[in-house]
Amino acid sequence: MHPAIHYCSVCGAPIKKQIPPGDNLLRDVCTVCDTVHYQNPRMVVGTLPVWEDKILLCRRAIEPRHGYWTLPAGFMENGESLEQAALRETLEEAGGPVDLGDLFAVVSIPHIHQVHFFYQASLPSLDLAPGEETLETGLFAEADIPWRDIAFRSVSYALQHYFADRQAGRYTLHSTTLNPVT
Amino acid sequence: MHPAIHYCSVCGAPIKKQIPPGDNLLRDVCTVCDTVHYQNPRMVVGTLPVWEDKILLCRRAIEPRHGYWTLPAGFMENGESLEQAALRETLEEAGGPVDLGDLFAVVSIPHIHQVHFFYQASLPSLDLAPGEETLETGLFAEADIPWRDIAFRSVSYALQHYFADRQAGRYTLHSTTLNPVT
Repeated sequence: MHPAIHYCSVCGAPIKKQIPPGDNLLRDVCTVCDTVHYQNPRMVVGTLPVWEDKILLCRRAIEPRHGYWTLPAGFMENGESLEQAALRETLEEAGGPVDLGDLFAVVSIPHIHQVHFFYQASLPSLDLAPGEETLETGLFAEADIPWRDIAFRSVSYALQHYFADRQAGRYTLHSTTLNPVT
Repeated sequence: MHPAIHYCSVCGAPIKKQIPPGDNLLRDVCTVCDTVHYQNPRMVVGTLPVWEDKILLCRRAIEPRHGYWTLPAGFMENGESLEQAALRETLEEAGGPVDLGDLFAVVSIPHIHQVHFFYQASLPSLDLAPGEETLETGLFAEADIPWRDIAFRSVSYALQHYFADRQAGRYTLHSTTLNPVT
């Protein structure tokens, strides 16, 4: 989540909550320089890397969900495209390049202010050197996916739809919204 | 673009540029409380609203591109899904609800730290009351689109591919990256 906004990042003065002119939501506005500090959702971008009939998963070396399995993905950075972010995160976490395919899953998660994007990808080789955010990588056939140890629901969503589409012989874009588990 | 970060929004102390442990990019880090202030791209979300063979465009009442024509779209807010953002922005700018269809265009614009998303949509009626960000709305057949007065390249991209897909009789997701015009 974003850090709290108590002070203006531009001039250091205290913040007030105010609805700016022409707006309809309470924003964090500087009491001195009037800068409006908007907060917006973040994009998490990654891939679903395939090798023959298997999927590459990464076991997380960091919180949240240390020790659980995930698809390689992470926060998109300023100055890159969605596709560049997907490739960079895969290189960092899985430790190897992929050939990028189509956008496959788009998952809005409103309560944590994130949207997750997964691209289809194929591994050109298994010469992988996982980064420090990854304990180990593994290749899993559908029957071997560790469903109970998947780190995030968006990852389970992408995997489930990938296997269903593969079974059906056609891949399409899948979108959903995940709300808090009650 | 985001406002400058000179002071910590959490405690008000000055910021230094530093690569945090486990990271590989310079970030804005507080000199006192060590909070890392990440900056990430923002999502602009909207629709391509169709009425019979015509597209609804909005003429902008605000900068940037005051007076130019656009598809209804705007910054996604915390706490909403992509689809909710598309519906809200259409309601605010075009002044009426739409029936939302599939995601149609995804446009990364790295140099301004944005990704634009456009959904297909159909207008259930022409009972529209445009908001204060819109000078007027208009319905345009393909031959009448004011191509030279379109506000943003992402909007032109979505419109061009919409008409091409309509001609071809099938609609698919279109993705691109727009770099600065040189």
